[in-house]
Amino acid sequence: MTYEGYEHLIDLIAQGDEQALRNALEEIPPADIAEYIDQNFEVYSTLTLLEKMDAEQQAEVFGYLRPQNQQELASHMEVSVLAQLFRDMSSDERADVYALLDVKLQDAVMRRLAKRDREDLLRLASYEEGTVGAVMTSDYATIPESGVVEDAVRRLRQSAPEKETIYQVYVVDKDHRLAGVVSLRELITAAPTEKIQDLMTRDVVALKPEMPQSEAARIISRYDLIAIPVVSEEDVLLGIVTFDDAMDVVQEEDTESMHRSATVGKLESSIKEASPVLIYRSRINWLVLLVFANIFSGLGLMYFEETIETHIALLFFLPLLIASGGNTGAQAATLIVRGMATNDVERRDWLYMLGKEMLVSMGLGTTMAIAVATVAFFRVDSVIVPIVALSMLSIVLVGSLIGVLLPFILKRLGWDPAVASAPLVTTIADASGVLIYFGIAASFLTLTPPA
Amino acid sequence: MTYEGYEHLIDLIAQGDEQALRNALEEIPPADIAEYIDQNFEVYSTLTLLEKMDAEQQAEVFGYLRPQNQQELASHMEVSVLAQLFRDMSSDERADVYALLDVKLQDAVMRRLAKRDREDLLRLASYEEGTVGAVMTSDYATIPESGVVEDAVRRLRQSAPEKETIYQVYVVDKDHRLAGVVSLRELITAAPTEKIQDLMTRDVVALKPEMPQSEAARIISRYDLIAIPVVSEEDVLLGIVTFDDAMDVVQEEDTESMHRSATVGKLESSIKEASPVLIYRSRINWLVLLVFANIFSGLGLMYFEETIETHIALLFFLPLLIASGGNTGAQAATLIVRGMATNDVERRDWLYMLGKEMLVSMGLGTTMAIAVATVAFFRVDSVIVPIVALSMLSIVLVGSLIGVLLPFILKRLGWDPAVASAPLVTTIADASGVLIYFGIAASFLTLTPPA
Repeated sequence: MTYEGYEHLIDLIAQGDEQALRNALEEIPPADIAEYIDQNFEVYSTLTLLEKMDAEQQAEVFGYLRPQNQQELASHMEVSVLAQLFRDMSSDERADVYALLDVKLQDAVMRRLAKRDREDLLRLASYEEGTVGAVMTSDYATIPESGVVEDAVRRLRQSAPEKETIYQVYVVDKDHRLAGVVSLRELITAAPTEKIQDLMTRDVVALKPEMPQSEAARIISRYDLIAIPVVSEEDVLLGIVTFDDAMDVVQEEDTESMHRSATVGKLESSIKEASPVLIYRSRINWLVLLVFANIFSGLGLMYFEETIETHIALLFFLPLLIASGGNTGAQAATLIVRGMATNDVERRDWLYMLGKEMLVSMGLGTTMAIAVATVAFFRVDSVIVPIVALSMLSIVLVGSLIGVLLPFILKRLGWDPAVASAPLVTTIADASGVLIYFGIAASFLTLTPPA
Repeated sequence: MTYEGYEHLIDLIAQGDEQALRNALEEIPPADIAEYIDQNFEVYSTLTLLEKMDAEQQAEVFGYLRPQNQQELASHMEVSVLAQLFRDMSSDERADVYALLDVKLQDAVMRRLAKRDREDLLRLASYEEGTVGAVMTSDYATIPESGVVEDAVRRLRQSAPEKETIYQVYVVDKDHRLAGVVSLRELITAAPTEKIQDLMTRDVVALKPEMPQSEAARIISRYDLIAIPVVSEEDVLLGIVTFDDAMDVVQEEDTESMHRSATVGKLESSIKEASPVLIYRSRINWLVLLVFANIFSGLGLMYFEETIETHIALLFFLPLLIASGGNTGAQAATLIVRGMATNDVERRDWLYMLGKEMLVSMGLGTTMAIAVATVAFFRVDSVIVPIVALSMLSIVLVGSLIGVLLPFILKRLGWDPAVASAPLVTTIADASGVLIYFGIAASFLTLTPPA
């Protein structure tokens, strides 16, 4: 059934039946309408489509649109229409859209909002991007400590339409400090005369506004929470973060760390939307840096120039040996980086992880050494067989060592361990590989008298 | 406040104050207790700790534990205690634990369950791993089509304790077919006498049990749903998937695709828990395959043996040029693979993405060619400068081409595009790089008369 609504919408717009369209819009999920608009974006037809929805749906659909389309639409709307949209949007989405507007439009909209909305907007817009403050909403439901269940339910019933969720209800004291939390489930199963103070949970898991969003997402996922409160140092309730925002954060975070693992920098828009210039910028720095880093491998080769000239057959195994160190190292680094991202692996685990990896790579290296020795046996002078086998084992061990340690070192330095990406590990493993291979070759070939 | 509960628990256990421990356990989130147990796992002390909790909390904590610890505990529990635990656990978690038990224990537990629980357990355990059926729960709340709001709320109040969520209530007809959905929010804000039929949403987004879990997670995240129903071909309601299960699925999926991007196979447990043998198995196949794939680069080098022998200085630039093609290709592949995973990029976008990437890599290649030409200018014979510059540009373009196309080709073949990993792209780019570099060098150096 999922995309049914979406296709239905396309048909109705094509047919041009106004009334049918209005009726249908009420039944189609806002996310589907927004996807339709994003994929066929054109300012004026979108404005016409938005007009056919009621205020609440308009605000919801608008909230789902791509930022660049929101920006475009906002700049073409009448200011009074935009201000109305702002009143109907949830407070966190409103703050995001506000940040997209130019200063003039920001002022014009601000003047049309009520004092309370204005203050709320300015407060939410003031938190730094990527922090919990920037993603929280102030449309949460509160009840006073003193009442009973009956009063609380009555209050929720009235305030429900403006709240992001009423399934978690926050109990606050007279200074708006968070005293506890009650779920709607608890409220409707409790006796109407039960005291809120007896029903509420007092040990509430809460966030601080300056925490990174990724941390918030992890906590929400850990405790399976529908929403989590955000409090100040003095425990004053500032907002809530809901599970759907947390899911978006997880996806964004994963995209970012996936990109970083291939030395791609931050890309604000999707790869399909991003301009070639933006993509170029996100990639060029690391690429040029890696060009220079690879000079070390070149210098290694030049250092062994004579060995290579007299035994040119050694070159045949160069790509294979070098790549093996890089590949094993990239595997090790990825396992550690992902383990760190999911909080499985902590900094203090470094020695344990290193020990285990050495055991594993001893096995990997031995198997690969046998594979390469078999190739060498059929292809070249038998004197080279032990050289390539021993080189393989050493290169795999060193590659693994680099792959395990680099993420821990980066984390120690306060960097993102995801920078310990395949390309970086490979580059370092390459240079070591050249030295190991030809170092071993040179000593073997000097020891062995020429045939 | 987050980990406070956790540390508090450690203190209390150390102090040995039974009553204080019992009281504290009630206030500590089950996820925290489970983490404490997982990190200090010992069968008998855990069984003692579990005994101090009430039945509901016991079941919740048990559900959060690592599978291997669940298995260990289950095999040490009295069968009657285990059966009670099964009765209190949510139906999806129960099915997961059931699958871990040995056949004898499965039988023993089964015999102690009521017929309804038994059937439910067998049905949930029958779905294939990774499907929606395997993650759904049958503890959902339903109401009949015919009633009014008042009746529905009364019914929910009674059944709430056994339900995974009562915030989404499913309206079913007499054959248990899904007719619509009402949220608890709608129910408590509606007039008590309003008919359910008038209040409910009829176009319900629903899943099928055989769908992959990743698809379910995407839909839940797309529509910001607390829970989503699972229906049969005949629209009979089979279960629901809740947002917290969806978040777990997203995390698992991301771990898997991250690992695949470094040619690490499926790892059932966390990297910290996995045995060296398991880790070895998940990595060796691709590594050996890549050893053999790299033979092509070696053959390329041997083909140009003479060129290399007469111009050994060319070797200096080999690592740097080859790596650049691999790095650019890995970036391109990662961007496409991640775009596909988040549904940004679809199969039909291949030509558009390829065109954009060619534009981008033209820029990247030019910049990198200038960088390498500068190095060459200071280091070697000026005849080599144009060779390395031209090679760099060509290698980067070819690397990007491979990086963009490989994920699309794999997807077309029905494979996971994440297999188009850095190591695979790098290996293919390496072999092309060798041929391009020495091919260009050979033709330039033949054209240019020796100095």
